[in-house]
Amino acid sequence: MTLNTATPAALIALDWGTSSLRAYLLDQTGRTLCVRPLPWGIMRLPEARPGEKSSAHPHAGFEIAFNEACGDWLREKPALPVIACGMVGSAQGWREAAYLDVPVGLSGVAQLMTKIERAGQATIHIVPGLIQRGELPNVMRGEETQIAGILAMRPSDGADLLIGLPGTHSKWVHVHDGQVNHFDTYMTGEVYAALRDHTILGRTMNSDAPADAQGFARGLAVASLPEGRAGLLSTLFSTRALGLTGQLDGNAQPDYLSGLLIGYEVASVLALHRARGALPHIVLCGQDALCQRYVQALRLYGADKPELAPHATELGLWHLAQAAGLVPAATT
Amino acid sequence: MTLNTATPAALIALDWGTSSLRAYLLDQTGRTLCVRPLPWGIMRLPEARPGEKSSAHPHAGFEIAFNEACGDWLREKPALPVIACGMVGSAQGWREAAYLDVPVGLSGVAQLMTKIERAGQATIHIVPGLIQRGELPNVMRGEETQIAGILAMRPSDGADLLIGLPGTHSKWVHVHDGQVNHFDTYMTGEVYAALRDHTILGRTMNSDAPADAQGFARGLAVASLPEGRAGLLSTLFSTRALGLTGQLDGNAQPDYLSGLLIGYEVASVLALHRARGALPHIVLCGQDALCQRYVQALRLYGADKPELAPHATELGLWHLAQAAGLVPAATT
Repeated sequence: MTLNTATPAALIALDWGTSSLRAYLLDQTGRTLCVRPLPWGIMRLPEARPGEKSSAHPHAGFEIAFNEACGDWLREKPALPVIACGMVGSAQGWREAAYLDVPVGLSGVAQLMTKIERAGQATIHIVPGLIQRGELPNVMRGEETQIAGILAMRPSDGADLLIGLPGTHSKWVHVHDGQVNHFDTYMTGEVYAALRDHTILGRTMNSDAPADAQGFARGLAVASLPEGRAGLLSTLFSTRALGLTGQLDGNAQPDYLSGLLIGYEVASVLALHRARGALPHIVLCGQDALCQRYVQALRLYGADKPELAPHATELGLWHLAQAAGLVPAATT
Repeated sequence: MTLNTATPAALIALDWGTSSLRAYLLDQTGRTLCVRPLPWGIMRLPEARPGEKSSAHPHAGFEIAFNEACGDWLREKPALPVIACGMVGSAQGWREAAYLDVPVGLSGVAQLMTKIERAGQATIHIVPGLIQRGELPNVMRGEETQIAGILAMRPSDGADLLIGLPGTHSKWVHVHDGQVNHFDTYMTGEVYAALRDHTILGRTMNSDAPADAQGFARGLAVASLPEGRAGLLSTLFSTRALGLTGQLDGNAQPDYLSGLLIGYEVASVLALHRARGALPHIVLCGQDALCQRYVQALRLYGADKPELAPHATELGLWHLAQAAGLVPAATT
């Protein structure tokens, strides 16, 4: 891919998480010219080939991944600004970036970029994460950028929003008057994988089974049953017990467990927000199939149909780059 | 060890679970003459040495483990009856034993032993498990024997009991009028290990740290905090977030997580039983240090001091062997 596109490139935007790296080349209107998905998450960086110049460098893996992601774009146009969000800014990342305390407006986020200056090469601007202090503190890195993207696409009418970002660690974010007011993390995706792969629940399960809509729906309802009041630590075991009693096939067990966990997550999120007042308008952002599971869960637990917000990450990176002055602000 | 003890041996009693096997030699009063702990749980049986006669046999591992556990006792006194409880009677065990439906009295349990007859060698009597049918069914194998032991030591005054059996899978059992009326399973121990060893929570944790009473107490309280209402899937993440914000040392994180899980378990158990009426007298049975964690949790969540019931397994095996006619019933 060369930069000989109809419109000139204006920004390199990196979504750099724990398990993958996604590089976007954006034009001066924020439109995506190219997306490059790479497996180089910060916990699985490429290794330098022996003898290669950079192999002794403590950040060699980051440099190699970065070069693969956008080295060619920069060689063609070295002045392209670079922005990055996600775990690349964590303590285990390339450079630890700041945390901003919530409540915070996202224009504030753009003022606190952490710079990786690279001796004559492109500087990388890392978006800060958010922190919520308190008895049980909470943190995010990367989702603040998705939130910026979602807010950038919407009218700034001051209406409250509840933004759901399903994933390995789902975030549920309450936005009030354009500010991130409060957020909760649910470890649903990672807990699912740990239970499936590393507990007795995996033993009776066919992990390679195709999606099982009935199993999923049945699991989803558990949190709403009278028996569901025993809580997740207890009802989890029904995945196995239903199998032992011939009531749930091994092929249906993975999605039953997925439904059970997502059901508890969504029931809890909705109960928390209802307890605070009327449920705000809900926006979901994440991988399509996973969002569909959450749409179903929200319906079962009585929420209105959520709005889906695709492409929030690249929009957010563009919007934050504008706010930070890395690219010209919109003139329209 | 030979059988030349002061009183003659009367019963071989095996507590044969997933990860270990414990063989008891009991005299004609049910007193323990010898305990032999072995690592041969049904999921980690010994292998036959190549060329050994039994190596082709599908149950070779069970035979070898059995022989190591009590072969010498049987060679000296081949007529000794043998009783076993636990996962040895599961589908993955030596022989699948029956399940009895709750509510059930434990005298009924003794009538449904599954026999492994072994061509001229000692017959093994496997205690049936219990099953609770319903929307979310539940099963136990092994704990029914501990319950029998606990009931055998107590006056049969018809008082309700809540028996807690903490472990990999904790069971909480409601006994009414000498019958097992209802039980719940909590996968607390196994979920703890899966989270510690296979999620990001383990990354900031020093798993080899000595016990940390303060971290444990802090985790225990989480379910009682206003923030605790977000539920386990969410508050779990505080183990990491408190670490990232310098509020919880890596050495304290394992016990914080342990406390957090046990807190949710105990808070849920007590809420369920309070919703059914007055909280019954509580009896705890399990490994000492673990029971002490539950004693602390019960205190925090407002229950009276529980009674501890050690040695319930061997007492239960003895009592069930009596009821099944394998050893003479008590004459006193």
